[in-house]
Amino acid sequence: MAKLFVIKIGGNIIDDEKKLSSFLKEFAGITDKKILVHGGGNLATKLAEQLGIQQQLVDGRRITDAETLKIVTMVYAGYINKNIVAKLQGFNCNAVGLSGTDGDVILAHKRKHPVLDYGFVGDVDAINIDLINSLLGKNMALVFAPITHDGQGQLLNTNADTIAQELAKELSKDYEVTLIYSFEKAGVLFDADNDNSVIPILNWNEYQRLKTPLQGKGEKQVIFAGMIPKLDNAFTALNNGVSKVIIGKAENLQQLIEGTSGTTIINE
Amino acid sequence: MAKLFVIKIGGNIIDDEKKLSSFLKEFAGITDKKILVHGGGNLATKLAEQLGIQQQLVDGRRITDAETLKIVTMVYAGYINKNIVAKLQGFNCNAVGLSGTDGDVILAHKRKHPVLDYGFVGDVDAINIDLINSLLGKNMALVFAPITHDGQGQLLNTNADTIAQELAKELSKDYEVTLIYSFEKAGVLFDADNDNSVIPILNWNEYQRLKTPLQGKGEKQVIFAGMIPKLDNAFTALNNGVSKVIIGKAENLQQLIEGTSGTTIINE
Repeated sequence: MAKLFVIKIGGNIIDDEKKLSSFLKEFAGITDKKILVHGGGNLATKLAEQLGIQQQLVDGRRITDAETLKIVTMVYAGYINKNIVAKLQGFNCNAVGLSGTDGDVILAHKRKHPVLDYGFVGDVDAINIDLINSLLGKNMALVFAPITHDGQGQLLNTNADTIAQELAKELSKDYEVTLIYSFEKAGVLFDADNDNSVIPILNWNEYQRLKTPLQGKGEKQVIFAGMIPKLDNAFTALNNGVSKVIIGKAENLQQLIEGTSGTTIINE
Repeated sequence: MAKLFVIKIGGNIIDDEKKLSSFLKEFAGITDKKILVHGGGNLATKLAEQLGIQQQLVDGRRITDAETLKIVTMVYAGYINKNIVAKLQGFNCNAVGLSGTDGDVILAHKRKHPVLDYGFVGDVDAINIDLINSLLGKNMALVFAPITHDGQGQLLNTNADTIAQELAKELSKDYEVTLIYSFEKAGVLFDADNDNSVIPILNWNEYQRLKTPLQGKGEKQVIFAGMIPKLDNAFTALNNGVSKVIIGKAENLQQLIEGTSGTTIINE
C-alpha cells in the first residue's frame, strides 16, 4: 500500500505567518501522498470580536450560531484555506483546498445533545473518498478546512482534530496512513508548562492513568482539557486501521515524520 | 464534442437567498457539463464597511489593498463559494468549489498600470485545465470564486466576468462551450431602466455603434458602464472558439439556455 500522511496543523502556528510558512515548506517537501487539515487559530475569534458577535465555548467547542457559522466559513474555508494553498503552490506543491461539502467529501449531521444546543456544529457521518482518491492519484496535496455539510444544503462547523481522524481512518483502507497532530507544543507533556517533559510513547493504559487525578500530584491531572479529545481521536484512529499516530510541534514536522520528536501513540 | 455551460452569476442575485436558491436549482438540473463562476455581490462591501475598511472602486474595479484582499478571499472563496456548493449538493448536484489557486487552475499576475496602483488585482496569464478536466470527467459541477494566484504564494482578486471568459475560451478546445452572463437585468437593454427593451441579438458593429454617444438621444450612450467590459469579454470569447454567448436574467436561466430570453451575442 502507498504511504499517506494526514497532518493536522492547529494552535497558534496558523496565526504566525513565518512559522506557518516554514511548516508549509516542510509539508510541501513530503514526497508521499499527503493531506493537511487546518484549524482556525485565533482569527475567527478576532473577527467575531471586531464584528461584535459574542463567542461561546463549551469544552473547547465553539457554539456555532448562524453568524458564527458565517465567520468560520469565511475564515477557515476562505482566508486560511486559500492562503495555505497559494503558499504551497509557491513551494511547487500542487494543492487543492477543500471543505467537506466539496465533492460531498464529509457528510455530517447537526449535533444532537440532550441539554446543550451546539448550533451549527456537525458530527461526521461518512467520508466519501471518491474525489479524495482521484486527487491523490494525481499527486495533488489536499488541504481541508474544518467545515462539513449535511447533504441538504446546510454547512456545519466540525472539529478539525476529528476531521483528521475520520479522514485517516477511512483512507487507511487504501493507504498506509500516518496521522500527525501538530501544534505549538512539543508533544503530550508530563508537565503542560514544560516543553522538555515530552512523553515519548503513550499507550492506552498509561493514557487512562494520566488523565485521572493523581494523588501524588495534589489531585492534578497530567493530561487534561483539549488534549483529551485529541488523544481520544488518536486512539480511535489507531483502533481503526491507522498505522501510526504522532503528536508534536509543528515546527518539527520533519522530525515528527521521522519519529525523532513528539509523542508516539500506541494501542498496546 | 461534449457540451459545456460556463455560467457567470453576478449582481444582487447573490445577496437574495430565495432567488439564488431558485437559480441554483435550475443550474443543478443542467445535464451537460457545467461550471458556475460567481461574483461577490454586496457582501464584501458590507463587511468592509462593518470593519471600517474604506473601499475604492475605479471603473467598477475594486482597488484591492491587503485588508480588502483578505475580505474578498473570505467572502468570495469562503462564505459564498461554500454556501453555493452546499446548496447544489442539497439539489443532488455533486459540485466542487475552487479558487484559481486550487490545482493551480488560474495563474495571474499583479496588474501593472502606468498611473494607478490596483493593489492585489490579478490579470489572468493561463488556465490549467488538468484539474478541471478531471473533475468534469467525473460529472462534477465546478463552482469558481473570482480569486486567482501568482504561483509565488500570493492570492489575487480577479474580475469574475473575465474568469468566466478565460475558462470558456480555454475549455472551447475540448468542449462545445456556451458562455452565459446572468445577472439582475433581462439582457443588454436599449434603455438601461427598462427591462422590456432587451436587444435580442447583438453583433460587433451594432455594439460599437451603441456604445458611441448617439446624437438623437442627446449624447446618451445606449451601452455604458459595467456592460462594456462584460461585452468586451463576450466578444473575446466568441472570437476564441466559444460557440455561443448569452447575457440575461439569472431568474430565467432555463430560457437563457434555450435561447428564448436575453441577448445573444454574435460575431458577424
